Amino acid sequence: MAQNIYDNAEFFAGYSRLPRSVQGLDGAPEWPVLRALLPDVRGANVLDLGCGFGWFCRWAKEAGAAQVTGMDVSENMLARARAEGGAPVITYFKADMEGLSLREAAFNLVYSSLALHYVEKLDALVREAHKALKGGGALVVSVEHPMMTAPAHAAWSSDPDGRKTWPVSCYLEEGPRKTDWLAKGVIKQHRTMATYLNMLVRRGFDITHVEEWGPTLEQVAERPDFAPERERPPFLLLAARKRA
Amino acid sequence: MAQNIYDNAEFFAGYSRLPRSVQGLDGAPEWPVLRALLPDVRGANVLDLGCGFGWFCRWAKEAGAAQVTGMDVSENMLARARAEGGAPVITYFKADMEGLSLREAAFNLVYSSLALHYVEKLDALVREAHKALKGGGALVVSVEHPMMTAPAHAAWSSDPDGRKTWPVSCYLEEGPRKTDWLAKGVIKQHRTMATYLNMLVRRGFDITHVEEWGPTLEQVAERPDFAPERERPPFLLLAARKRA
Repeated sequence: MAQNIYDNAEFFAGYSRLPRSVQGLDGAPEWPVLRALLPDVRGANVLDLGCGFGWFCRWAKEAGAAQVTGMDVSENMLARARAEGGAPVITYFKADMEGLSLREAAFNLVYSSLALHYVEKLDALVREAHKALKGGGALVVSVEHPMMTAPAHAAWSSDPDGRKTWPVSCYLEEGPRKTDWLAKGVIKQHRTMATYLNMLVRRGFDITHVEEWGPTLEQVAERPDFAPERERPPFLLLAARKRA
Repeated sequence: MAQNIYDNAEFFAGYSRLPRSVQGLDGAPEWPVLRALLPDVRGANVLDLGCGFGWFCRWAKEAGAAQVTGMDVSENMLARARAEGGAPVITYFKADMEGLSLREAAFNLVYSSLALHYVEKLDALVREAHKALKGGGALVVSVEHPMMTAPAHAAWSSDPDGRKTWPVSCYLEEGPRKTDWLAKGVIKQHRTMATYLNMLVRRGFDITHVEEWGPTLEQVAERPDFAPERERPPFLLLAARKRA
C-alpha cells in the first residue's frame, strides 16, 4: 500500500491547520474552477476518492446528490468526517486506494481532490473508477501539477531579472519523490501530464477539460504571496467522461 | 499575419543547416514517436500545415497516400520542396496559416510539425483543420512544449547538485515570446498544455494520445548532448480524432 502520511501525527497536525482543512472548500483557492468542471449532482450517486474531512461529500449532499460515498485511508480524517454527520445520504469507508475494488456502473461522478498523486498503482485505480461509473459518467480530479512533482530540488529560484522561476528537472523520470511538506519524507508519485491523460484515454475516458490551475489576478491582489503560483501552476485539474 | 521568419536570410541559412533540414525526418529525433501516432496513410488524402522542405509530404507519398497537400508561408522553403518533385501526388501551396480557409471534409489526416507555435490565431486554424477533416479523420501535430516557450529567460540553470534545471516562469501568461534562435527576434506564441488540449476538445476533436517528447536513453547514449532534454521535454506531440 501507499504511504499513509495522513495518520502521521506531525503531518496530520499541520494538515489540520491548512486553510482548506479549517474553512473547507472555500479555503481551497482552486475550488471555484474545480466546481465549474462538475456535472449537476442533483439526484446523482457520487464517489469521493480521498475524501479527507468530508468537505466535498457534504457539499455534494447539500447540492442534492442522492448518495455520496467518501473513501479515505486515514482513520484520523474519517473520524472527523463522520463526526460532521451527513447520514444517511453520506457513507464513509476506510479504504486503501491501492487495490481498491468498486461496484460496477454504480456512480454518476467519481471525484478526487489532491489525492491521486499519492497513489502508486494509479492505472489500476483509473480502471476501477471507469468500471464504477455509469456510461457517460464524469471523472473530475485534481492532482499536484507534474511540474510541481518533477524536480529533484523543488524550491523556487530566480532569473536574472529577479523573477521567480521554478526549476524543472527529472520531468521524464516518473516515480516516487520524497519531499518535506508538513512532515519529513512525504512520498508523492511523479507522473507527466501525458501519462495522466493517456491513462484516462486508454481506459475508456474522453477528456472533456484540462485546467492548469493558478490563482487569478484577483486572488493574487487579495493574497500577494500567491503571485509565484502564476509562474508555474501548482495544480492540474482534469475532467473526463466515460465513453458510453 | 504571423512573422514569417523562414524568409529571413540569416534564419533560413541557419535552419537549412539543421540535421532535420539536411537529413530530413531521420534527422528529427522525435520522428519515430510522431510517426507512431499517424494513421495508415495508404490511399489517404493528407494535408501538411507548415510543410517546409516537404520531407513529410514525400514520406507520405512513399507510404502510399493518394494525395498530399503541403502548405507553407515561406517561398524559400516551397521552392526547395518543389524542386524535389512529387507531382502529381504532392501539391504545394503558399499559404499563411493565419486566416487560412480549407475545403470541407477533404482530408483523412492533417499533420503539422513544429509550426503551430508560430501561429497567433490558432483557434481559427484548429476550426479550419476540423472542418477540412472527414469524420474520424486524424490530427497529428508537434509543437514546442509549453515549458519551452513559457520562460521570460529561456536558458538552462542548475540545482544545488549540479543537475540541469529548466527555469519555468510566466507559464500562465500566454502570448508572444521573442527569442534569439538562429536569428534575433524570432517570435513564438506561448500557450499552456491546457489551452492546446481544450482548443481541440472544444472544436470537436477527441484526444487520442499526448506525448511529451524527450530523447530515449538510447538516443542520449548516442548523443550525450541530448541528456538535458530529458529533464524537460522539448516537444509536445498531440494526436486527436475528429468526432464522427
